[in-house]
Amino acid sequence: MRKSIATVSVSGTLTEKLAAVAAAGFDGVEIFENDLLACPLPPEEIRARAADLGLTIDLYQPFRDFECVPRARLRANLERAEHKFRLMERLGADLLLVCSNVSPETIADDGLAAEHLRLLAERAAEHGIRIAYEALAWGRHVNEYLHAWHIVRQADHPNLGTCLDSFHILSRGSDPLGIEAIPGEKIFFLQLADAPLLAMDVLQWSRHHRCFPGQGGFDVARVVRHALNAGYAGPLSLEVFNDHFRQAGTARTARDGMRSLIALERQLQGAVHPSVPAGFAFAELSGTGSLGGVLPALGFTRTGRHRGKPVELWSQGAARLLVNEAGAGQGPGLLAIGLDSPDPGRAVEHAESLLSPVLPRERAPQDAMLHAVAAPDGTEIFFCDDGWLADFPPEDGSSSDDGSPRGGGSPSAGGSPGHGGGGITHIDHVALAQPPHYFDEAMLFYRGVLGLQPQESLEVPDPYGLVRSRAMSTPSTPSTPQGTGEGPGVRMVLNLAQVGAGQPPPQHVALACTDVLAVARRLRAEHPELLLPIPANYYDDLEARHDVPPELRELGVLYDRDERGGAFLHLYTVTVGRVFFELVQRVDGYDGYGAVNAPIRLAAQHAAP
Amino acid sequence: MRKSIATVSVSGTLTEKLAAVAAAGFDGVEIFENDLLACPLPPEEIRARAADLGLTIDLYQPFRDFECVPRARLRANLERAEHKFRLMERLGADLLLVCSNVSPETIADDGLAAEHLRLLAERAAEHGIRIAYEALAWGRHVNEYLHAWHIVRQADHPNLGTCLDSFHILSRGSDPLGIEAIPGEKIFFLQLADAPLLAMDVLQWSRHHRCFPGQGGFDVARVVRHALNAGYAGPLSLEVFNDHFRQAGTARTARDGMRSLIALERQLQGAVHPSVPAGFAFAELSGTGSLGGVLPALGFTRTGRHRGKPVELWSQGAARLLVNEAGAGQGPGLLAIGLDSPDPGRAVEHAESLLSPVLPRERAPQDAMLHAVAAPDGTEIFFCDDGWLADFPPEDGSSSDDGSPRGGGSPSAGGSPGHGGGGITHIDHVALAQPPHYFDEAMLFYRGVLGLQPQESLEVPDPYGLVRSRAMSTPSTPSTPQGTGEGPGVRMVLNLAQVGAGQPPPQHVALACTDVLAVARRLRAEHPELLLPIPANYYDDLEARHDVPPELRELGVLYDRDERGGAFLHLYTVTVGRVFFELVQRVDGYDGYGAVNAPIRLAAQHAAP
Repeated sequence: MRKSIATVSVSGTLTEKLAAVAAAGFDGVEIFENDLLACPLPPEEIRARAADLGLTIDLYQPFRDFECVPRARLRANLERAEHKFRLMERLGADLLLVCSNVSPETIADDGLAAEHLRLLAERAAEHGIRIAYEALAWGRHVNEYLHAWHIVRQADHPNLGTCLDSFHILSRGSDPLGIEAIPGEKIFFLQLADAPLLAMDVLQWSRHHRCFPGQGGFDVARVVRHALNAGYAGPLSLEVFNDHFRQAGTARTARDGMRSLIALERQLQGAVHPSVPAGFAFAELSGTGSLGGVLPALGFTRTGRHRGKPVELWSQGAARLLVNEAGAGQGPGLLAIGLDSPDPGRAVEHAESLLSPVLPRERAPQDAMLHAVAAPDGTEIFFCDDGWLADFPPEDGSSSDDGSPRGGGSPSAGGSPGHGGGGITHIDHVALAQPPHYFDEAMLFYRGVLGLQPQESLEVPDPYGLVRSRAMSTPSTPSTPQGTGEGPGVRMVLNLAQVGAGQPPPQHVALACTDVLAVARRLRAEHPELLLPIPANYYDDLEARHDVPPELRELGVLYDRDERGGAFLHLYTVTVGRVFFELVQRVDGYDGYGAVNAPIRLAAQHAAP
Repeated sequence: MRKSIATVSVSGTLTEKLAAVAAAGFDGVEIFENDLLACPLPPEEIRARAADLGLTIDLYQPFRDFECVPRARLRANLERAEHKFRLMERLGADLLLVCSNVSPETIADDGLAAEHLRLLAERAAEHGIRIAYEALAWGRHVNEYLHAWHIVRQADHPNLGTCLDSFHILSRGSDPLGIEAIPGEKIFFLQLADAPLLAMDVLQWSRHHRCFPGQGGFDVARVVRHALNAGYAGPLSLEVFNDHFRQAGTARTARDGMRSLIALERQLQGAVHPSVPAGFAFAELSGTGSLGGVLPALGFTRTGRHRGKPVELWSQGAARLLVNEAGAGQGPGLLAIGLDSPDPGRAVEHAESLLSPVLPRERAPQDAMLHAVAAPDGTEIFFCDDGWLADFPPEDGSSSDDGSPRGGGSPSAGGSPGHGGGGITHIDHVALAQPPHYFDEAMLFYRGVLGLQPQESLEVPDPYGLVRSRAMSTPSTPSTPQGTGEGPGVRMVLNLAQVGAGQPPPQHVALACTDVLAVARRLRAEHPELLLPIPANYYDDLEARHDVPPELRELGVLYDRDERGGAFLHLYTVTVGRVFFELVQRVDGYDGYGAVNAPIRLAAQHAAP
């Protein structure tokens, strides 16, 4: 299907917008009037610019507060429309969006609305222009899409049709099934926007919080499906008003919008994700050696070294960490994640089809094939089969004290339990810090490219602000993966720090343990300096809320419980460079991330020297 | 009255919060539980720290979801309370806030609520602790303050009273008059928060958008007045949850909160502002000479030079601009504003009583007395009587071409019309850029210190974001001041740029003209390079909406019209350094600022070389 986007959806000047929209692969644009008014180019030049870029001008919008007005105002409104028709002729646009009147003076009379719109359509026809009438969700009398359609039907003019907008339909809770009652050729235009499910004034919701399909809580695909069933043959056009998109990079947002439409098309085709990862193959950190002793202290052993690059492999169970000297200058940080992929080639093709930059495969001839893309936040994502481990042969004099390196990407493939007992079995999740204004983009990327499902957004208090946090995971992640033979799945947490003072929250790698208390005991005895200190006041409160063993307090282990009786035990290391580790134990199907304890952790991290 | 503040209202660690709250002059604090849990100090040390700082711990909060639960849960809740009572003993706090149960499992039974709260009060009494029961606006069954009070009355225990919170009362639209029916000694605590009037879910509104009294749209004073009439004798305590305050400086927000309580007390005493300014005495810009020819081009003449400082006075009518070489290195920018004050001494005393830093009076013995304070945004505010002009005697060889310098601070005092005819008569308004997170603080400052009244906040689209904008003015500013003999009043616009790319919007000085078209004609003829170019597309649209003379297009003059038939004609100069000038003409009582044209101006400024 043809893909279009309203210029208001991205930042920049009109000429910047047109260039970015074309570069992202859109077929057409809706010209939002304010963008044109502020543009120094005359309409003829904008028309030529769009044509040069291969963009059609699919819609000019909006024309407001036209219908159901007293006679004198109608005359003025028709004159106003004549101005716009002449402008559209210069611009080469032949479809005008008229949105339902919001003025308190609007006359509540559908017959009058139809009469006025018919008059407008007659005038428009003289210019070869068509009118698409849309019900704004906050229209004074007309605010339901079927109401707008009934007026259009009553007006009965070939140059008058209706415009459907998924936001206006779904924000009011209207059933989009009714779209199928509209003849497809009378649906002149289809605008698409998603939005998070917020309980607020619909006008403010619309003006500030719309987002691209797949980034919010609406079933946008359902609106499209009904429109297609009705016979709609026009473009799918994004129309988003979003405070963050307004401040984000023009090209980047345009690409984000295109990714959302591609994903939406796939969804409409019933496509399933071709290669949902089974678990983490590795997390790659910048740094040197054992990260200052942290890795051996956690029970990891060095089990290999890359054939040709300054990268070490540290392993414990099926948890594998790569330590890469490149970039170590900035101190330890999370560079990349490797995912156990059922089909790395298809996974990277799928990612590329969703506009992800494929990373160059810098490799020596004997190295395993690398399939990798860059996430919008800069994290490199590697899709791995078992072969990658062959690039990390064990060395003579390896520090391994628990046997030889293990092959196989599956956590059930007989990993050793680590040297302390109760040790680390696999990577439970990674938490990635996101830059401002790109949170929704990242969510859509991980959703579309990796097949992860998002949970609700949370806001976690930090001493100097808030951290917006959203967890994502592969569908129906088993919580106790060991021995299932299927892989533990992939969990990720996206964090956006809205924090005034101090350092932004670091990234982290959470490692699953079979017995976190045993690991904690060993760490407390051997490396107490690595444990993030948790205030005693936390335990006073915890003991008031839950019946927990006093050992948690001694060991600095945090605790959460869900409504179904699942429990979560976790502890944090201090931050090393820009990254820290969390050790977690999920009990009885606990499926969260201990968010209730995150404020304690954030405060402790700010307090740490 | 005693003044208190909840620790959640300001950013930082608990110890930072206590220090800042004490430094701002508060008498006490509410300890918000999460702040304590995250604090590494034991309760005894927090108690000692507060005592050392001269702070009482007035409340510990919140204790949630206690009442109207099944019997087994009640037992657990009472045990949980015992933990908190022991903690409060260590902390030296004797008042616990219990907020109404929000759980879906709450039993709707006031008798049961009273029974449970009585049980809790009995237990509390054993520890010398009292319970303040509060209706959360989103409580499951109890969400009205009088409902909470009826339950407290029914429970009838000396250690049980109610807590009132202006947000919970006013956000639901409840009439606070009912407070007077509550015996004062049963109002155990009074929490104060304001909020902008938003149509959104009350929980989200409360958690993110509360602000200090005087910063929002609620009549907080009315709640306090009724509580005082009822006999309430406890502290006025601020409890604010605000995303910006969380990210702002701890000390600064604490001082902002104290300023709001001082202003609230004045309001309760019926105090009127002692010295509302009559108009602008001057605007002071950093720069040298004629600002590169801009000032003479606008019709200003140099009418004086400071006796002892490198500051020139440029005048036209009653519009006076000071050009100060200090700070000129950064290019022209707005440094200060001078206000015609009926009593500069009282004005600065009043500002100081509202915690404004008074500026040192660096002056030579013969100079006029300077009364000045610093605004939170860094602008210096001078309160002036007529004497200040004597510091700027005319010099030999002055470039003045329209007569000698004028004395007198009143714009009616016979200013010349400027050399072009239709010239500038006075400063209409100044627009000040605000730093992030301090917008509400600035509004409260200008409201309290200068006596300005705020209008609604607007959001203006910029090509790379949004500009939040709020106009403020002295009450009932006459729009055509010339000849009234009373002064034009003071108008200011506070702007907060939420803009991703490009330069933040500059500050500006708007100058009132008697005939802006005449001024524009002269500028177009003599200095076309100084006019900000306005796109022809703007005029195509303007002419579709309004019957305006074609000359506007030729001259680059913008136009707005209000609902009562008032009109606004204005034009912009290009930006010089970090400041630009606007020339405005208000017709027939137009009282706005041409906000509808601001997006055009912002785009043109981004496009300017």
